[in-house]
Amino acid sequence: MSYFDVASSAPLHPVARQALQASLDEGWADPSRLYREGRRARLLLDAAREAAAEAVGCRADELVFTSSGTRAVHSGMAGALAGRRRVGRHLIVSAVEHSSVLHSAEAHEDDGGAVTEVGVDRGGAVDPEAYAAALREDTALACLQSANHEVGTVQPVARVAEVCRAAGVPLLVDAAQSLPWGQVDGGWSLLTGSAHKWGGPAGVGLLVVRKGVRFAVRGPVDERESGRAVGFENIPAIVAAAASLRAVRAEADAAGVRLRELTERIRARVPGLVPDVEVVGDPVRRLPHLVTFSCLYVDGETVLHELDRAGFSVSSGSSCTSSTLTPSHVLRAMGVVSEGNVRVSLPSGVEEAEVERFLEVLPGVVRGVRETLGAPVGGGDGAAEAVTVDALGMSCPLPVIELAKAIGRVRVGGTVTVLADDEVAAVDIPAWCWTQEQEYVGERPADRGVAYVVRRSS
Amino acid sequence: MSYFDVASSAPLHPVARQALQASLDEGWADPSRLYREGRRARLLLDAAREAAAEAVGCRADELVFTSSGTRAVHSGMAGALAGRRRVGRHLIVSAVEHSSVLHSAEAHEDDGGAVTEVGVDRGGAVDPEAYAAALREDTALACLQSANHEVGTVQPVARVAEVCRAAGVPLLVDAAQSLPWGQVDGGWSLLTGSAHKWGGPAGVGLLVVRKGVRFAVRGPVDERESGRAVGFENIPAIVAAAASLRAVRAEADAAGVRLRELTERIRARVPGLVPDVEVVGDPVRRLPHLVTFSCLYVDGETVLHELDRAGFSVSSGSSCTSSTLTPSHVLRAMGVVSEGNVRVSLPSGVEEAEVERFLEVLPGVVRGVRETLGAPVGGGDGAAEAVTVDALGMSCPLPVIELAKAIGRVRVGGTVTVLADDEVAAVDIPAWCWTQEQEYVGERPADRGVAYVVRRSS
Repeated sequence: MSYFDVASSAPLHPVARQALQASLDEGWADPSRLYREGRRARLLLDAAREAAAEAVGCRADELVFTSSGTRAVHSGMAGALAGRRRVGRHLIVSAVEHSSVLHSAEAHEDDGGAVTEVGVDRGGAVDPEAYAAALREDTALACLQSANHEVGTVQPVARVAEVCRAAGVPLLVDAAQSLPWGQVDGGWSLLTGSAHKWGGPAGVGLLVVRKGVRFAVRGPVDERESGRAVGFENIPAIVAAAASLRAVRAEADAAGVRLRELTERIRARVPGLVPDVEVVGDPVRRLPHLVTFSCLYVDGETVLHELDRAGFSVSSGSSCTSSTLTPSHVLRAMGVVSEGNVRVSLPSGVEEAEVERFLEVLPGVVRGVRETLGAPVGGGDGAAEAVTVDALGMSCPLPVIELAKAIGRVRVGGTVTVLADDEVAAVDIPAWCWTQEQEYVGERPADRGVAYVVRRSS
Repeated sequence: MSYFDVASSAPLHPVARQALQASLDEGWADPSRLYREGRRARLLLDAAREAAAEAVGCRADELVFTSSGTRAVHSGMAGALAGRRRVGRHLIVSAVEHSSVLHSAEAHEDDGGAVTEVGVDRGGAVDPEAYAAALREDTALACLQSANHEVGTVQPVARVAEVCRAAGVPLLVDAAQSLPWGQVDGGWSLLTGSAHKWGGPAGVGLLVVRKGVRFAVRGPVDERESGRAVGFENIPAIVAAAASLRAVRAEADAAGVRLRELTERIRARVPGLVPDVEVVGDPVRRLPHLVTFSCLYVDGETVLHELDRAGFSVSSGSSCTSSTLTPSHVLRAMGVVSEGNVRVSLPSGVEEAEVERFLEVLPGVVRGVRETLGAPVGGGDGAAEAVTVDALGMSCPLPVIELAKAIGRVRVGGTVTVLADDEVAAVDIPAWCWTQEQEYVGERPADRGVAYVVRRSS
């Protein structure tokens, strides 16, 4: 088995396991108690906080441990928004944030707040100017991930933080994906992380609130973790999380070089091995271990099943998004192909041979799925002026397959109109045109569904 | 060292440790993923849910795992209140609930809801009739602990559940203290628990919502645990929690008999060993492992320090309450002495010799503290008609000490008036009269502080 999905969850790091087991005997008591067992638990908790703070690059009294990265995001956003309620209720997020951020934004909107979603370029990166343009008098908080969890694109956090700081608006950075690789630079105000993303145990998240940032805790009072994280402290897991963060950081530079070379290999070779593939995400400003590509004319889930049978665990579409957000809101926002999407995120210990084997297996898997779906071989030299394809009732990737078949039946300059009611077509037909260098003329409502018009340009 | 504070947190049960370590290798992946590692994690999670549900006495699909018992209470109360918002916003809680319940009630009040607090008798138990009387047309939810965390009194949950059911009001039971000892009987609607109270790991709570109970999740959407508990599932800890609950249940009957005998010994002998002690809590309907007593003329914290130095870890006053609720809201509600309060909660593995040693050490510890505080030797045969004592600026236990000294200076039938501004005096002076069989005449505002009037009756 080759597990290529650490961006979803990483296996427990040996140091985490060691620290967890070592602290099970000392870390079970209530650290707020004054007796021996309580004092011992408190010492472990304080030491873990110091270690985590040093790794994050903040003061120990700015960092609390939450029960998960999702909880850290929910509490961090709610607390920062409440702390600046007098200023206003406007929130800025990027369109490619993790679902925990977008769901918090939805909850804020349902509660009467205003939300501005900042778009991204085709590489998945935001433009600091777009954040500057989104800032308002009543902006209470802005959020930006340090790196994207689906395509690995690293965001210009430091520059966005400058823009926000100039406007006096705090920036919350979801650093879940990048924290194992290094500190987040720049003048951010709040930061969140999740231990199981770096090989720590599940059940531990980080919430950092810089001194001086207005923060008002929401919900019932609880005295633990400065009142910012409710519930009895999970000290053995917290100790394991802090220890493993230090450990992965110590290995980060060497591992990064090695993994970047392997993911570069996948980026470079997949387009040659598999026809009609789009490798997505920024080719340079990206996480070292993560590469994502989309294969036309196949559906991601079937590809995943086939890869699993072949011994490879990868994910597809948007990781960690609730069904309400699928298909991937990230790929949609980028305007890239979403069908047949495959995300590969390599563990530090991956063997070069595993990656080579993946590159051997992939083409056959995709070919097999395409054959069962009757995907087009491409080409064709038709003479028709205009062809209309009825793809109503068909779901992804079939409308695109019908388009690809039809394009060969019209002459260069002729048009294909696809009637479809699958919402994914709105993403994938323009994306298909981009990858196939055909002209996307546009879309208009039809009697049923939507009519997508494409002009053959080659 | 003798650790006598399992009601606060129990050491990890050997079965929990075993299960935790065994599932670290299989339980780290995302159970919502379709590949091998995800499917294995899902199997562990499903099996743990089945085991926990069987132990609680509910259906597996009625139980979700939360990140702590406190979180289970917060989410359970918020969800049940929101689910019945159309009915109304009235909430009923007992005066002796855990702080997580009382803090949720405060948050509900701050949010515009109405709260009725049901009192308890001197033994700490609620009267089902009082719940019946508190029910209103607009009552959305009632809450009652299965057993009290400070004095061990078992509450009449089944009868209160009947009363609530007859009115169509759901009852939420905080079962944190009793779950290790057995299922909670009766027609309750929601139930919460906390794994570290039964020797499971920290970071795992239980929230059970019976089928048919209206429940509306609050806060940002998250797809995990039926949307009722946010964040990546902590599967190794969940497996350990479920396994250890089954294990402690298998040992519960035998352990219960043994511990009840030992706590009975403490209940019976402490009053003989230490003068001016009140053993609190119901002598019969109580948890087997827990006994609480209050020592007049000493402060609990000093006694704890001295007992810790002597090798005994116990707690005092209200466990797990935030400073805003100390001194113990439980002892206040019961009307018993709160000063010099000591809670002993024995682990299953406790040696009889440890308990005997505690009974040897305790008298000297209390005597020592009383000597440093200049506590009265009692008795005295004064002739004065009325004496006024100025205890202004003195804090617990000094006002009571001054009263005890003064009572000997008046004749039987004479009165002592204590002027005090320490709020604890309002609890402890009447409680002192009860224990010393003196007549508490009453209190009235004075130029400074409050005047407490006591008549010597023996």
